[in-house]
Amino acid sequence: MKQLEDRIKKDGIVLPGNVLKVGHFLNQNIDIDLLSAIADEIASLYSDSHPTKVFTVEASGIAVATAVGLKMGIPVVFAKKHTSSNVQGDILSAPTHSYTHGTDYDMTINRDFLDPAERILIVDDFLAVGGALKSLISLVEQSGAQLVGCAIMIEKAFQGGGDELRAKGIRVESLAQVETMSEDSLTFRK
Amino acid sequence: MKQLEDRIKKDGIVLPGNVLKVGHFLNQNIDIDLLSAIADEIASLYSDSHPTKVFTVEASGIAVATAVGLKMGIPVVFAKKHTSSNVQGDILSAPTHSYTHGTDYDMTINRDFLDPAERILIVDDFLAVGGALKSLISLVEQSGAQLVGCAIMIEKAFQGGGDELRAKGIRVESLAQVETMSEDSLTFRK
Repeated sequence: MKQLEDRIKKDGIVLPGNVLKVGHFLNQNIDIDLLSAIADEIASLYSDSHPTKVFTVEASGIAVATAVGLKMGIPVVFAKKHTSSNVQGDILSAPTHSYTHGTDYDMTINRDFLDPAERILIVDDFLAVGGALKSLISLVEQSGAQLVGCAIMIEKAFQGGGDELRAKGIRVESLAQVETMSEDSLTFRK
Repeated sequence: MKQLEDRIKKDGIVLPGNVLKVGHFLNQNIDIDLLSAIADEIASLYSDSHPTKVFTVEASGIAVATAVGLKMGIPVVFAKKHTSSNVQGDILSAPTHSYTHGTDYDMTINRDFLDPAERILIVDDFLAVGGALKSLISLVEQSGAQLVGCAIMIEKAFQGGGDELRAKGIRVESLAQVETMSEDSLTFRK
């Protein structure tokens, strides 16, 4: 998606340790016109797959997932990163490692929120090694619902998580695929 | 907002300790038509105030804030509940106590994300004692931006946080104001 790639080139900040900061325009302090265009693009890519629900994980995936849900007119649910005292009932869980934060957590979702009859579109802001995305996919598999595919705003393609999932036959659409990045330059996969 | 009150009466679950569970239709597993109607209502209430930015706090405020931002065509930003390793620069902070989870945390926002020239509309899912809302207001005050008001999906009015802020002259609009609740009955303030 050229609009997103151009904006990342213009405003993204590359830091040591393969960190690409976009919080100031994309996933925390949100340019609403850009988010709206991203949601339109994801809705267009997946309209033929007829998803019935958008699934993401807190916190920075919620904004793009909500925008996609509004565009497609389908409900949205997010997984949590720990067991909250407010969560009750039958919980699905997937152990997850965050390479960004260097932490381990359990990604959890109430089983009632992923019905086996649903067709699930997973939406998230970032894909790198794929830790969070693999946990989201695991939760869908545990639920018995059907996964129609994944839509990601920014994939750091050189970290391999996306291609690993594609090799398994999972549809992964990333609107911007960073192929190389350094403090001076950033290139995208075509 | 009658549609929201009716839905809370129908599907809300009251638990001991003044807990009202709505995660299964409102703030985690999200009925997108209800969320869209809520965002329309908030946009309508505040259109004359000409806010330039929506401000909320992770995680369950992000969905409604994003929906309001899309409806009003203004950017959205959310505060974080701890200092993340990805946050850098000049940080505003407000110590906060969560009565729901019995925890203390620092609510933080990058100073660059709340410009003194902005007119801020705070949006959140719940208001009870008002701990989180007071911290959001504190962050706006620290930034020098102007607060146009607060929009809340559900206020537990009997816990007093909303009225305390209104007495200080802050505009607080809650779409459903729970006046009394027990496992058998739930009444709303008119």
